[in-house]
Amino acid sequence: MSDFDLVIRNGRIATASDVFAADIAVRDGVIAALGKGLAPGKREIDAAGRWVLPGGIDSHCHVEQLSGMGLMCADDFYSATVSAAFGGTTTIIPFAAQHRDMKIPEVVADYGKLAREKAVIDYGFHLILANPDDTALQTDLPKAIRDGITSLKVYMTYDKLKLDDHQLLDVLSVAAREQALVMVHAENHDMIRWLAHRLLEQGHTAPKFHAVAHDPLAEAEATNRAIALSRLLGVPLLIVHVSGQEAIHTIRRAKQRGAAVYAETCPQYLFLTAEDLDREGLQGAMFCCSPPPRDKESQEAVWAGMKDGTLYTYSSDHAPYRFDKSGKLPKGDATTFKEMANGVPGLELRLPLLFSEGVMAGRISMQEFVALTATNHAEMYGLSGRKGTIAVGADADLGIWNQDREITVTATMLHDNVGYTPYEGRQLKGWPEIVINRGRVVIENNELKVERGSGQFLKRKPSDMLADPTGISAAVARQMLRSLVGMGGPA
Amino acid sequence: MSDFDLVIRNGRIATASDVFAADIAVRDGVIAALGKGLAPGKREIDAAGRWVLPGGIDSHCHVEQLSGMGLMCADDFYSATVSAAFGGTTTIIPFAAQHRDMKIPEVVADYGKLAREKAVIDYGFHLILANPDDTALQTDLPKAIRDGITSLKVYMTYDKLKLDDHQLLDVLSVAAREQALVMVHAENHDMIRWLAHRLLEQGHTAPKFHAVAHDPLAEAEATNRAIALSRLLGVPLLIVHVSGQEAIHTIRRAKQRGAAVYAETCPQYLFLTAEDLDREGLQGAMFCCSPPPRDKESQEAVWAGMKDGTLYTYSSDHAPYRFDKSGKLPKGDATTFKEMANGVPGLELRLPLLFSEGVMAGRISMQEFVALTATNHAEMYGLSGRKGTIAVGADADLGIWNQDREITVTATMLHDNVGYTPYEGRQLKGWPEIVINRGRVVIENNELKVERGSGQFLKRKPSDMLADPTGISAAVARQMLRSLVGMGGPA
Amino acid sequence: MSDFDLVIRNGRIATASDVFAADIAVRDGVIAALGKGLAPGKREIDAAGRWVLPGGIDSHCHVEQLSGMGLMCADDFYSATVSAAFGGTTTIIPFAAQHRDMKIPEVVADYGKLAREKAVIDYGFHLILANPDDTALQTDLPKAIRDGITSLKVYMTYDKLKLDDHQLLDVLSVAAREQALVMVHAENHDMIRWLAHRLLEQGHTAPKFHAVAHDPLAEAEATNRAIALSRLLGVPLLIVHVSGQEAIHTIRRAKQRGAAVYAETCPQYLFLTAEDLDREGLQGAMFCCSPPPRDKESQEAVWAGMKDGTLYTYSSDHAPYRFDKSGKLPKGDATTFKEMANGVPGLELRLPLLFSEGVMAGRISMQEFVALTATNHAEMYGLSGRKGTIAVGADADLGIWNQDREITVTATMLHDNVGYTPYEGRQLKGWPEIVINRGRVVIENNELKVERGSGQFLKRKPSDMLADPTGISAAVARQMLRSLVGMGGPA
Amino acid sequence: MSDFDLVIRNGRIATASDVFAADIAVRDGVIAALGKGLAPGKREIDAAGRWVLPGGIDSHCHVEQLSGMGLMCADDFYSATVSAAFGGTTTIIPFAAQHRDMKIPEVVADYGKLAREKAVIDYGFHLILANPDDTALQTDLPKAIRDGITSLKVYMTYDKLKLDDHQLLDVLSVAAREQALVMVHAENHDMIRWLAHRLLEQGHTAPKFHAVAHDPLAEAEATNRAIALSRLLGVPLLIVHVSGQEAIHTIRRAKQRGAAVYAETCPQYLFLTAEDLDREGLQGAMFCCSPPPRDKESQEAVWAGMKDGTLYTYSSDHAPYRFDKSGKLPKGDATTFKEMANGVPGLELRLPLLFSEGVMAGRISMQEFVALTATNHAEMYGLSGRKGTIAVGADADLGIWNQDREITVTATMLHDNVGYTPYEGRQLKGWPEIVINRGRVVIENNELKVERGSGQFLKRKPSDMLADPTGISAAVARQMLRSLVGMGGPA
Repeated sequence: MSDFDLVIRNGRIATASDVFAADIAVRDGVIAALGKGLAPGKREIDAAGRWVLPGGIDSHCHVEQLSGMGLMCADDFYSATVSAAFGGTTTIIPFAAQHRDMKIPEVVADYGKLAREKAVIDYGFHLILANPDDTALQTDLPKAIRDGITSLKVYMTYDKLKLDDHQLLDVLSVAAREQALVMVHAENHDMIRWLAHRLLEQGHTAPKFHAVAHDPLAEAEATNRAIALSRLLGVPLLIVHVSGQEAIHTIRRAKQRGAAVYAETCPQYLFLTAEDLDREGLQGAMFCCSPPPRDKESQEAVWAGMKDGTLYTYSSDHAPYRFDKSGKLPKGDATTFKEMANGVPGLELRLPLLFSEGVMAGRISMQEFVALTATNHAEMYGLSGRKGTIAVGADADLGIWNQDREITVTATMLHDNVGYTPYEGRQLKGWPEIVINRGRVVIENNELKVERGSGQFLKRKPSDMLADPTGISAAVARQMLRSLVGMGGPA
Repeated sequence: MSDFDLVIRNGRIATASDVFAADIAVRDGVIAALGKGLAPGKREIDAAGRWVLPGGIDSHCHVEQLSGMGLMCADDFYSATVSAAFGGTTTIIPFAAQHRDMKIPEVVADYGKLAREKAVIDYGFHLILANPDDTALQTDLPKAIRDGITSLKVYMTYDKLKLDDHQLLDVLSVAAREQALVMVHAENHDMIRWLAHRLLEQGHTAPKFHAVAHDPLAEAEATNRAIALSRLLGVPLLIVHVSGQEAIHTIRRAKQRGAAVYAETCPQYLFLTAEDLDREGLQGAMFCCSPPPRDKESQEAVWAGMKDGTLYTYSSDHAPYRFDKSGKLPKGDATTFKEMANGVPGLELRLPLLFSEGVMAGRISMQEFVALTATNHAEMYGLSGRKGTIAVGADADLGIWNQDREITVTATMLHDNVGYTPYEGRQLKGWPEIVINRGRVVIENNELKVERGSGQFLKRKPSDMLADPTGISAAVARQMLRSLVGMGGPA
Repeated sequence: MSDFDLVIRNGRIATASDVFAADIAVRDGVIAALGKGLAPGKREIDAAGRWVLPGGIDSHCHVEQLSGMGLMCADDFYSATVSAAFGGTTTIIPFAAQHRDMKIPEVVADYGKLAREKAVIDYGFHLILANPDDTALQTDLPKAIRDGITSLKVYMTYDKLKLDDHQLLDVLSVAAREQALVMVHAENHDMIRWLAHRLLEQGHTAPKFHAVAHDPLAEAEATNRAIALSRLLGVPLLIVHVSGQEAIHTIRRAKQRGAAVYAETCPQYLFLTAEDLDREGLQGAMFCCSPPPRDKESQEAVWAGMKDGTLYTYSSDHAPYRFDKSGKLPKGDATTFKEMANGVPGLELRLPLLFSEGVMAGRISMQEFVALTATNHAEMYGLSGRKGTIAVGADADLGIWNQDREITVTATMLHDNVGYTPYEGRQLKGWPEIVINRGRVVIENNELKVERGSGQFLKRKPSDMLADPTGISAAVARQMLRSLVGMGGPA
Repeated sequence: MSDFDLVIRNGRIATASDVFAADIAVRDGVIAALGKGLAPGKREIDAAGRWVLPGGIDSHCHVEQLSGMGLMCADDFYSATVSAAFGGTTTIIPFAAQHRDMKIPEVVADYGKLAREKAVIDYGFHLILANPDDTALQTDLPKAIRDGITSLKVYMTYDKLKLDDHQLLDVLSVAAREQALVMVHAENHDMIRWLAHRLLEQGHTAPKFHAVAHDPLAEAEATNRAIALSRLLGVPLLIVHVSGQEAIHTIRRAKQRGAAVYAETCPQYLFLTAEDLDREGLQGAMFCCSPPPRDKESQEAVWAGMKDGTLYTYSSDHAPYRFDKSGKLPKGDATTFKEMANGVPGLELRLPLLFSEGVMAGRISMQEFVALTATNHAEMYGLSGRKGTIAVGADADLGIWNQDREITVTATMLHDNVGYTPYEGRQLKGWPEIVINRGRVVIENNELKVERGSGQFLKRKPSDMLADPTGISAAVARQMLRSLVGMGGPA
């Protein structure tokens, strides 16, 4: 006699390393058993002919947050988590964003309240750190980390967010001590503002010049610099949203030298190019994000980087702005690329795009899909064992995918508040028909099945990367310097 | 009510991607369920406080086989499989070795008979191909592949085994058509014999000059050449027993260029150096193998290559010869390094060495250990889903490891017929206390628990690498050439 | 009947490409003829058994200049040029240094006056630009360039000199338009000040910690960044005083990508290491310079970089400070490495060190010596055809070297005002016994033979590097961007 | 009062390092003086408005020689040297070619006789070594070297010429002892014959399939192998006629590792591509050579390799065969690419092509032109100081070039016996109007001015590369191995 709450039968299961056929039994939100012919559950789902994959983790998305330009996202925690769930994602990690005049404890408290009331799937927070003063570094950041916010993001560009190299060293040094993972937006601020200023001066205002101003060298340079700072102190680092081939080469070379550097990429760098910004009128604004989509060669380099582990996680960098004056379009009379909100939506299509163009098209294996969309995120952000895999004891976060389901993407089928999609009209093969979070069926029959506010906050442990042998040897290699500057031994 | 044959409870399980706590239930030799509080089995094992890992696969070992020098291995299928099992290995893939005047069907039949009568764990065969004439390539090799011998090994050195580049292209071309994986021993034959000749001419006969004759450049050159042949036709290739840092760099660079090239390394390249060959008298012969152990820098490069996937499998290259005139010592009056059998034993200590020096010493993670010793071998050699992992439906091949067990290595504790070990005196931490093959407890309480001949032959499917996106794109890139030379499209 | 002013007979002559035996005839300060058995001159010198080489050009030296720390050099134009001449150098190019509150025309005028009154050999000026405001960039810099100051130096570090990346782009953009060569001191300012602050905080004040604060990564990072800025706009760049192997690799890789980037090194990076800073008490301060001497591996990398053209010029970076409170030693009570003047002397020994350790020791050829010490400087700084070679029509700037002359270096034998030498006690082979500038014998019989103020100002043409095919193709590759930002086509 | 035989006035002179204006005076065939207003000569030439450059050295050309296929060249020493001279070349170094059954002393004697009777400009010989038996290596080769044939060429392909790696090591070992430079034709023989066999089997017989059979990987592989052999023993090596980008990368990487490896390229790799072989009917045969022309990317790589010194000499590899059954066209009924003579003519156009497309088009400087066409050859082949430069004491070998002269290439304007040119119809800018060898005007007013047989044999000293610091350190690095194998210390 069994007391399983749910049994999913006959599916083909993939983890980051294995593919096998088994039933999955869930009890109390957790995977209780994997096996053939498991005892009946209170609820049964037949997954015959379908894949059962770990629910996606989107570790880079902007939700109900003010941007560096002061714009509010079009998605709140409700629309964002609903949209994520429809696309097969069961965990998101958006940003509790400090702006320079804000106090971190309040930022975190306020953001927690918003999420608690609205989220339909589980979530954790990263902290965005815009003002790493003594209070932040010595008191507030350690407190946030103890509260499970074990990663923090810093910017090398944007007037209102940018840290200088000295501040980055302060942050890295504290992160090493407090066991937090540092994520960095790596673009050279001065290159971008110099180019933008000159371009506008010459009358080049159209959206496509956004991609000119954000030259690939701005990314490659800042990536190299961030890595140098990280190597200097032997502290691990994650470069987010890597887009260009030279940045990828820089990261790969650093890894081969033994640097504890990790990197993330996003769908826009696999499926869009800078040419998409060159649409009629202001339409190109729909494709503006930072870094911008690049060219075909960089797309190939991103695929190769995902294959060889140089690019370890694949996130959406969902940054939702409507194509009107609330977001993408300039508010006043000015119509230059500098006034258009930066960012593209991607929460819902992230997994389906990679499933179709990666797995179905034969570019990556199903195990690699799972690793890139779920398992590696859990490892990176302190959720391993709990999220991002199908294993006994892990949360029952699952997507049941029909690989024969064909979809033509339209904005109207999506559940975010953005109103357009950069992938309009694409033909995709494969779709998550049932999505489960902690054993709760969240999506089924193309309907939301759970209540607003039913998602849970994830108090995360430190990133596994901080205990990664690579990271440790990088720190050991810098042990003498660390000791001289009072950082103690390796983490 | 359950009908499990065996339940292993309370262990900490690792796969190539996950670590979790669960019970494992076995029925009919296969993993039937993973879960907490599974129903009782006919037999129960308590693994509390211990690791439960996939049994090792040793995909490179010489057993009851004639060497290129005409010497018979000291181990037959009985001693070899017993020794392997004591060390946590549950599958071996030795070589059915064609010498130039032998017919492949007879070689395979004879070898199968030996194994059938003696093996205590499961086994597959690779074919060694020394005479790739028309009969071999058009008839015998396809037949062997259909019979489950889906990999074959060729040599670029040794007078009696060496193929020239033209023959290697023939072999690669047929392997692509017949879906076999080609393994290559890559050393430049002419360099080695030129150096050896000159060294002996100058009176340099001691064992240590074996390592001088087998200069790292001989390996690096042949590795590059083998890869060039493979790239020419867009056919996947595996370089076995990679030892030197320059060879590793060559492989890494080829992979980054998109070549479908894979590589293996062995314990002797992690734990020995050429200095070990410089012992008193002929003692150095105990450490003679080809390629020889290198230096500290190459050891570091091997660790790094395993970390980043350049070196994908870790095998023993067990080549068992006694330290007497039957093996390591010259038979006649001559006492030069040319008359000493090549090869070192390693079947039994392969896993314990890496467990201790890799996982316990913090150089690799437990998941990486599993991948390097088991899962990647299954993927490489057509056993995925069946061997090399812990998943529902897979064979219950398991090692229950006590990570606190400390061992001092001595030859007398080992179960092969070699009589010495190159690792004499090493302190190791961690040991596989119970070893299970297809649900049968093979080793327990330091005793063998199964009958001679109870191991089974594994009819293998084609290597997953032949369907690896990397391999396919390498073939696609060469599609025009392949078409022009009558090879058809990509595999 | 001849009217030669001077004929040097029977010497062995080397240029950057040739070695040959000939007489050299001089008329009006210029080489009038090369030949055998030339007609008699008013003066004759017998160079039989000796080398006749182009006089050295020292394109990086600090003379009678305020440092970024506000210290005045120990050498004025008289002592500096006398010292240079004794060491075989016949042209120097020191820096007319703008500090932030200074007007460039005055800086140039004042500096010109000092030189005119005192210099005994020829000289040009670079401009140091600390405040690239509109007046500087649009008016003063173009004027200085028209007046023959066709190169300018900028700093990425030092509180009072540092430009940010935006300013560097401004400077590069104007330099491209006005045909000036930009030289850059590339070290990451924030890394250095962060490390220095932490080191002092931990009580690490000794001179050797200067080398710790100036970590090789600070150089490698800034070098990469400077090159990225240069590549962004397709404008040539020279990295001065390159010291560390990673910076060298960065430059080499950039060159191979087609970047118009050039680099300089100095004797301190060939002949000193960071260990020299670890002398008793404050003695280490004698070896403090920025970047600091590195390690043996970097010395090897510098030699290799000079061999393959990655490091194109070899200058002294003579920065003369006495070992007392006027210079190297702290002025107040503080005795930390931050208060010790940065810089080592090298004007006089630059050539003899490389002659002895490079040519005599068999590491470089005589032609390479000439290129590194003279010809490449002329090419780099707009003096080709006039200085730095032995050719008809070129200024008769010559050193007559006795390669058998052995010297033990002592500070007392030198002619600068520094009072110590970092090379004290070295044994050198080869010395310039006669030194000639524009046909005037400047040094002979170890005596100065010319008057104070007899050197001439060199109004330089633009660097040949600006017309270097490499530089042009880098600019062409960036033509679209240059055009969009209003920079016009390639130079 | 002067006794100059010839004075060339008012020209603009370039050497490998300098450009200057001067008169050149010649006495007894040698440059006696360079200067302004030199005394009158018995003959005077006004070079005002024209360049005076060193006469070209063509160190790779086939003249009056049997090919590996047994075909006699269309050019004998008369037509070849006349053709060379018209194109600005004043020295050639063709091959005294041993075939396997020939004795070296006779080969050399016979070849010397042919040259003596016919050559109109100076010449040296390389030896082709097809049978490195004991007599050749121990007796004949040392004798030839003592007689001034200080370089020898070996082949890694062609059935009748190919040496195996063991033989190559023998040759390198003897070359090191006897101070000869080894030149190698590096293509993988087995790859080419395997591909050719398969192509013909599939009916692909047209000339363009020659380029398919000679895949770039065949070159890259053999290049890597040759370098490995050279590095093994620490013996310098020259790779001739390098064509493909991967081979170039391989050479560059080896040099950066410190290998004493040098390389040559040819006009066909700068100005032709494999597409030229795809002309109607058999016309493509006119462009067949080995290695074949590649693609645009490889052309770019060749330019870049010449710029950075990876490709050090630029020769013609003139291999003259008429477009009829005596040469390019198959003799019997067969009309496959295997029966078409390999090789393209280039003696006469080598310099004009590079002058026009390199110097005039702004891709290389005039000094680089001189280095690539003359000076580097002299350095490479033991003629430095005597040939390849304009310096006092050097042979007066000069080309007076009119850079404004425009030429449309036609076969009829050329002076070889080939009857066609692969460069038909090209527009060139710049032509050598007067060509001088040892002071003798050879070409003037488009007419030959000297007698058949007036050229002289050049007894060459050992290559300067054998005393190159790079080469020496490579040997030193291998000193222990060299000593163990009885090679003694470094050269």
